[in-house]
Amino acid sequence: MTQILGHNFIGGQRAAAGTIIVKSVDASTGEHLPYSFHQATFEEVDRAALAAAGAYPVYRSLSAAKRAEFLDAIADELDALGDDFVALVCRETALPAARIQGERGRTSGQMRLFANLLRRGDFYGARIDQALPERKPLPRPDLRQYRIGLGPVAVFGASNFPLAFSTAGGDTASALAAGCPVVVKAHSGHMATAELVAEAIIRAADKTGMPAGVFNMIYGGGVGGALVKHPAIQAVGFTGSLKGGRALCDMAATRPQPIPVFAEMSSINPVIVLPQALEVRAETIARDLTASVVQGCGQFCTNPGLVIGLRSPQFSAFVQQVAGLMGDQPAQTMLNAGTLSSYGQGLQKLLAHPDIEHLAGSAQQGNQAQPQLFKADVSLLINGDEVLQEEVFGPTTVVVEVADQAQLSAALNGLHGQLTATIIGESADFVQFGELTALLEQKVGRILLNGFPTGVEVCDSMVHGGPYPATSDARGTSVGTLAIDRFLRPVCFQNYPDSLLPDALKNANPLRIQRLVDGQPSREVL
Amino acid sequence: MTQILGHNFIGGQRAAAGTIIVKSVDASTGEHLPYSFHQATFEEVDRAALAAAGAYPVYRSLSAAKRAEFLDAIADELDALGDDFVALVCRETALPAARIQGERGRTSGQMRLFANLLRRGDFYGARIDQALPERKPLPRPDLRQYRIGLGPVAVFGASNFPLAFSTAGGDTASALAAGCPVVVKAHSGHMATAELVAEAIIRAADKTGMPAGVFNMIYGGGVGGALVKHPAIQAVGFTGSLKGGRALCDMAATRPQPIPVFAEMSSINPVIVLPQALEVRAETIARDLTASVVQGCGQFCTNPGLVIGLRSPQFSAFVQQVAGLMGDQPAQTMLNAGTLSSYGQGLQKLLAHPDIEHLAGSAQQGNQAQPQLFKADVSLLINGDEVLQEEVFGPTTVVVEVADQAQLSAALNGLHGQLTATIIGESADFVQFGELTALLEQKVGRILLNGFPTGVEVCDSMVHGGPYPATSDARGTSVGTLAIDRFLRPVCFQNYPDSLLPDALKNANPLRIQRLVDGQPSREVL
Repeated sequence: MTQILGHNFIGGQRAAAGTIIVKSVDASTGEHLPYSFHQATFEEVDRAALAAAGAYPVYRSLSAAKRAEFLDAIADELDALGDDFVALVCRETALPAARIQGERGRTSGQMRLFANLLRRGDFYGARIDQALPERKPLPRPDLRQYRIGLGPVAVFGASNFPLAFSTAGGDTASALAAGCPVVVKAHSGHMATAELVAEAIIRAADKTGMPAGVFNMIYGGGVGGALVKHPAIQAVGFTGSLKGGRALCDMAATRPQPIPVFAEMSSINPVIVLPQALEVRAETIARDLTASVVQGCGQFCTNPGLVIGLRSPQFSAFVQQVAGLMGDQPAQTMLNAGTLSSYGQGLQKLLAHPDIEHLAGSAQQGNQAQPQLFKADVSLLINGDEVLQEEVFGPTTVVVEVADQAQLSAALNGLHGQLTATIIGESADFVQFGELTALLEQKVGRILLNGFPTGVEVCDSMVHGGPYPATSDARGTSVGTLAIDRFLRPVCFQNYPDSLLPDALKNANPLRIQRLVDGQPSREVL
Repeated sequence: MTQILGHNFIGGQRAAAGTIIVKSVDASTGEHLPYSFHQATFEEVDRAALAAAGAYPVYRSLSAAKRAEFLDAIADELDALGDDFVALVCRETALPAARIQGERGRTSGQMRLFANLLRRGDFYGARIDQALPERKPLPRPDLRQYRIGLGPVAVFGASNFPLAFSTAGGDTASALAAGCPVVVKAHSGHMATAELVAEAIIRAADKTGMPAGVFNMIYGGGVGGALVKHPAIQAVGFTGSLKGGRALCDMAATRPQPIPVFAEMSSINPVIVLPQALEVRAETIARDLTASVVQGCGQFCTNPGLVIGLRSPQFSAFVQQVAGLMGDQPAQTMLNAGTLSSYGQGLQKLLAHPDIEHLAGSAQQGNQAQPQLFKADVSLLINGDEVLQEEVFGPTTVVVEVADQAQLSAALNGLHGQLTATIIGESADFVQFGELTALLEQKVGRILLNGFPTGVEVCDSMVHGGPYPATSDARGTSVGTLAIDRFLRPVCFQNYPDSLLPDALKNANPLRIQRLVDGQPSREVL
């Protein structure tokens, strides 16, 4: 494994002008690892943003095929990161090796998916309205539209996916695909991991002849704000807490030029367990639900934090089963001390609430997270109690019992925006509770039937987004190919000669892409 | 013509609880017209937003074909507004009858364009990734995505297009098409016009069986802020000043739930006149440019406010020609006293600037706007002087002479974001100045060759948007079918049985729309 330098990545160079040193930490022991990182100075933040801005005109003008080569090369470099890399990620995050190996494949696969998207060409959104010189009362000029990258993008990775949602994660992949250079703020929870991934990206950039500054990364606390406020930055991708994400949104909104922030923040991902399903397979549901809640120590954006059922002896028995299973789950090490501390605080709020009952779980103590099960009165949902709406990041969930179908709707209407909602049911349930889909559509980005929300497929159809506070902008997704849309804007050419048009809009259609021509999809030569 | 009641439109009813009365004004004389409007009370603003929210679940669930019927019916009602309506609009805006007749046709045509878009179905963005149950290591579930309306939209119309960018304008048309009920804040400059248009919309809603609350409108000053802050409102469309638009953006960003604002605000629309074109046809260019500057008293978002050329005897002669023509243009009546006053203040700033020279135009006085021509030193652009970047709304433009091609690039790089840029040139110019397209792409939403930016075609390929401060979000357009994207968000269904999916995503493809199926565009039945 290459040495960990701990220097910032700026315009293809390494920079370490700062004197503030931050240390990487072993997530399991809390001890410092032998890696030191130079917090970026404000001058270095400025240089990183300017390096990205300098690369933008060149990078965005490269053919999509060339950008696809770059993404494929990143994927190859990621795949080549070996066992010592995996071991290092495990030390920084306490996540198991098999998970990190899988996540490495997911991260390289994501890069290749965006490379394919670039070759497919639908991201251009190419539209052509041909001239109508004879139209009365006025002729129509030739008008053509495609989409270009917004400009440099600042990326704030997530703690819980040190590869797939971090340095080379979905935000970086979609921004680079869009033609936007990137400045990553390295996550303080896995800085050595970030460095090795950044080096992989730089190797790929060198191999494929990308402009210096196409990828930059800075270390340290407090540098994120300066990055978001930098005039060269044109958009922000973030995955993390509601507090952190909202702070970035507020900074971006008060800039002289406001910029869009795509923050994926807080979601409790309700699971609705319907009566017929409980009749048929209560035990399986209890087991799968418990597994989903404690998977990866509950450290998933889509972790099911709320389980809703209709009052009945079957539901009571089901809750008992889940309580038994949750009580049997072992404690697990969390990503870092801060995460564990937040988990403890979240549990305290639930325990302290007079209308919330603790059903299962050993008292939270020590340096691992104890799985917990709670039960809350439905009035908390209906009346919009904030405690229940707040994501408690970790291996816990809250059961809510509703009296009847009307109260179920009332409870769901009381929910804030979510990434996901899950319905567990049988055919008879879907008939009886037919209103659920329309209701949940208004609340979430993804609705699942008879599955569990942990496990987010990376594909064209995925939506990992949703109404506030799940994200800051429900129109985006941070997983799947639609994520590229966040970083593109349309440009129109009027009365342009063919030779001056971008390839995506030329008459000969040299890219062989589908375009909307005079209102009809077409791959034809014009 | 029906009587002008002056009551707010709330949930299909008229409401006039307020005691503050605002009057419609004759734009030519400044006298009150015999129409009184009840400013909405805060309780009425609340009721209007809630009426829209109440209509949303029903309205968004209507088939696209049904919403298209509604839009077509609005178009028919608009076309049926007769000569007395046109006369009233002319009185409120001082715009000529032929222009208003044309704008009525444009407004109804816009509604029909969105109706066709709804029937075409590409706005759904339908995507399907079919299940891969045998995939290793994990099966892929069936995943399907389409787009739904965001929720109630607040619309703030423009003064300068009392029909096409106002009550039934592009924002309203695209929001209604997206499945979003609308609350319009009636423009204070044409309230009687707004009332008659609102009544036309309500008639169309009644005829096509739309839910009460699909369209609402409130009158008065100071009610806009309450509307934007209302929790039921999910997005805002605005056309107007930078100050007004930015204020709405700031309000929206500081809500407990921030919402997107699509504000079209300030643009000076540079026109670059290249040497060969001046050789060949200086006189025509001077005439067409002057016509574009004074058209409609210069009251267009895309009015050319900056003319850039390369220093040469030809360019000097051209500027002389333009000065002569501008000096010959008659004064015109503006939309209202506020617009005239702003125009006068804008001229004062230009006149007071030591590096700006007045070339033509009679002294501004009286109640009409005098066309004016100025010349500014190029250093103002290069150094980012704010006076030159500010849109002066009215019949004026500023000439800037650059020393050479390098200084042209420097000057253009100094520009803020714009709706449009125009290049006037011959083939030899395009070869010599090949860098202009890439440079201007980064600054504007639409680039024109050998045309003038006034005159915005309503079609699939149009972009009426651009980087800040031209708009608040460069990813949107407020003209053309892409405008619908602003008000849509994606929703994903995982593992859903066919019977529960929306029609756009069913296996049988009952809407016969094109969908992205496993990465390929397809109209097939699955």
